[in-house]
Amino acid sequence: MTEHIFKNTAQPSKDASNEIIALFIAASHPVDLADWLGQLLRSEASNHFATLSLRRRAEVFGHLSLGIQADLARAMPPDAFAQILIEMDADDRTDLLKHLTQEERQQALKSLPQKARDDTNRLSAHREGTAGAIMTSDFAVLSPTMKTMDAIVALRCAAPDAETIYRSYVLDADGRLIGSVRLHQLILAADDAVIGGIMQPISVMVMPETGQEDVAKAIARYDLLALPVVDAAGRLVGIVTHDDAADALKAETTEDFQKISTVLPFTQSMRDASFRMLYSKRIFWLSLLVFGNLFSGAGIAYYEETILTYVSLVFFLPLLIDSSGNAGAQSATLMVRALATGDVVLQDWRDLIVRELAVAAALGGTMALVVLPLGALRGGTEIALVVGLTMFVVVIVGSLVGMSLPFLLSRLRLDPATASGPLVTTISDGVGVMVYFAIATAVLTL
Amino acid sequence: MTEHIFKNTAQPSKDASNEIIALFIAASHPVDLADWLGQLLRSEASNHFATLSLRRRAEVFGHLSLGIQADLARAMPPDAFAQILIEMDADDRTDLLKHLTQEERQQALKSLPQKARDDTNRLSAHREGTAGAIMTSDFAVLSPTMKTMDAIVALRCAAPDAETIYRSYVLDADGRLIGSVRLHQLILAADDAVIGGIMQPISVMVMPETGQEDVAKAIARYDLLALPVVDAAGRLVGIVTHDDAADALKAETTEDFQKISTVLPFTQSMRDASFRMLYSKRIFWLSLLVFGNLFSGAGIAYYEETILTYVSLVFFLPLLIDSSGNAGAQSATLMVRALATGDVVLQDWRDLIVRELAVAAALGGTMALVVLPLGALRGGTEIALVVGLTMFVVVIVGSLVGMSLPFLLSRLRLDPATASGPLVTTISDGVGVMVYFAIATAVLTL
Repeated sequence: MTEHIFKNTAQPSKDASNEIIALFIAASHPVDLADWLGQLLRSEASNHFATLSLRRRAEVFGHLSLGIQADLARAMPPDAFAQILIEMDADDRTDLLKHLTQEERQQALKSLPQKARDDTNRLSAHREGTAGAIMTSDFAVLSPTMKTMDAIVALRCAAPDAETIYRSYVLDADGRLIGSVRLHQLILAADDAVIGGIMQPISVMVMPETGQEDVAKAIARYDLLALPVVDAAGRLVGIVTHDDAADALKAETTEDFQKISTVLPFTQSMRDASFRMLYSKRIFWLSLLVFGNLFSGAGIAYYEETILTYVSLVFFLPLLIDSSGNAGAQSATLMVRALATGDVVLQDWRDLIVRELAVAAALGGTMALVVLPLGALRGGTEIALVVGLTMFVVVIVGSLVGMSLPFLLSRLRLDPATASGPLVTTISDGVGVMVYFAIATAVLTL
Repeated sequence: MTEHIFKNTAQPSKDASNEIIALFIAASHPVDLADWLGQLLRSEASNHFATLSLRRRAEVFGHLSLGIQADLARAMPPDAFAQILIEMDADDRTDLLKHLTQEERQQALKSLPQKARDDTNRLSAHREGTAGAIMTSDFAVLSPTMKTMDAIVALRCAAPDAETIYRSYVLDADGRLIGSVRLHQLILAADDAVIGGIMQPISVMVMPETGQEDVAKAIARYDLLALPVVDAAGRLVGIVTHDDAADALKAETTEDFQKISTVLPFTQSMRDASFRMLYSKRIFWLSLLVFGNLFSGAGIAYYEETILTYVSLVFFLPLLIDSSGNAGAQSATLMVRALATGDVVLQDWRDLIVRELAVAAALGGTMALVVLPLGALRGGTEIALVVGLTMFVVVIVGSLVGMSLPFLLSRLRLDPATASGPLVTTISDGVGVMVYFAIATAVLTL
């Protein structure tokens, strides 16, 4: 956070007095307290944590990183941990339990009441990256035959457990989702109105298997606070809240940034990432790209004679290859992002490729004009002609490859961000070299 | 949206019957209806729009793109447009009025009631990209001396106008923000409890000048539905809702994607972007990078003799330059994203540069080992030595440049994403060429 955000407490400095620390621990927002605890030594964090009230412990705990949660859990007596587990939101609890060892998990599950245990088992069955994995079972439920005043009483009882009570879901006798009611509708309605009469139809819902990116897109598109998740029989099994969807979307976006820059995806914080992990995530594409060079290197070797005769051709090699790669990266990145946000869909390909060709030709033409005088200056008229012509062609090729790859990968049901970056570079390189020296040989030996 | 999202209506196909279209118009979610209207010819859209009830028109209108809003506004009678304007959320209304001509805006403002006009004028005074520009003045307000039952009555009256009534803001007699109450606290509280007694302190707030990226980060960090905006005197002037913050964050992220791929930022949809705009946004850095080549070209020219003697050095030129650029792009992108999400802050630079040096050395070492046999195969032992050594050095240089540039730009109060991409490429190129031929000359003339 920067200086433009005003908070009622400031994080204590490293040499802060015990009074200041105590004040901060008592008055700070749970998120800020969790942040501060995360920066301390584990033993210190554990000591401070033990001084908190149960309510505050539960509030803070869910905001700690899973690693710290697990460490603190191990450092506290089992029944203290059990109390926190019961207080936690169902989705946060499930995430934590997945992070513990098999034995610790069994131990923790035993300490939970039956309902919480069933919930946790059900939630943890879903694959990572799906609606099922980020949904919570803490939602408020009403029956269609209830009167609004009874509904308000029911919500008063359910409120502390529901993650959001701003919208209650209306289920029929079989648990099937048939509508929803907003809290302020309940308040505005007459006391004896029946829920079935004031509820609204559900306009959007998803299945547990729906990808979290689609879930986040739907929540953003319809400005929802929560999105209901139903099973194949139409029974409500969970809701995904807007904040959890936003976290999932942030993680997916970070993954896209990593992928387009040829880094294998990882979810850890950059601040805490280890040497070993960074190395392993970055080396794969870097070293694979070396083998892509087998093609461009072979191309250059094939034209050795031309190079020896016109050595000034080499001056422009880096520029031509980079220009093709840059144009390709522009197109690829714009498309990866447009596909990720839903701005563009697979079917738009035909329309977009025509426009891309026009834009690429204009870019290539301009670049050719820019490079012509440089070519003339360094190598004379003929070299200028070769360099200009090559620039025109490779910018077009780079752009078309860059634009098409994300669509192709998406078509093959792969993430468009995967490999778009490195493949664009490699293909641009190979094509660039071949085009350059083929044009050179043709023009210069005329 | 994909097939994994279930909705109660499907968009009519192009040859759908009038009945199906009528059903869709009546039953679809305002967002979907707006989407469909946006795909029609303006005259068709205008005709369908005219058939909607006033309430539905107002719901749909805010979801149309600003260009279509303006076109529809021009096509309808002034008093019909005035009615929609009055119904719209204050922030949406302000955005639309900014999009009209000076004359149209004056005309529209005249048709608004005094309060709405003042609101609009106040909101439109703020700079784009700040909290002031995305906040709304439609918030629910309570006084600290009110009883909860009176508060609920007051909210019943205010509800249709407030963009969110899930949290009401408590102001003192001078309009200064002193606390807030959540709707379900009101419901849970005793009827005669006083607001001042049950309100919570405000834990986070911003100023109108606060950047929208900081606003969005704060909302995500504290899982807020809305963030209050106060003036220098502490008076509440607006709230930023979570959905508007999410839209702003999405736009900022798209801008980051554009910038790191050397595209000048633009906010238009990729699907609708014109040839002219795409060209103008992409040509700037592409052609500027040509001049960066003056350095690498000059470097190569300087070593012409070496090249003529050892032409196999040229085989590896694209590979070495690309590897340096790729390693740099990896580091730069990871840092740009980490700085944008707040994962890493300026002060972390010292710690991170040490780790980056270690990672880069390991990457460079591995890459050198990978390229050694290729070098030996194509050019013999000495060439292999030169290529391996160069690879080691340029991967380190590329990584360090890539990592440092976003910090440097951030330090200079520029957006870290700006220029990181193109500058990394250009610097890697220049340094790569110089290092390569300097090492070659040193090793091969021994």
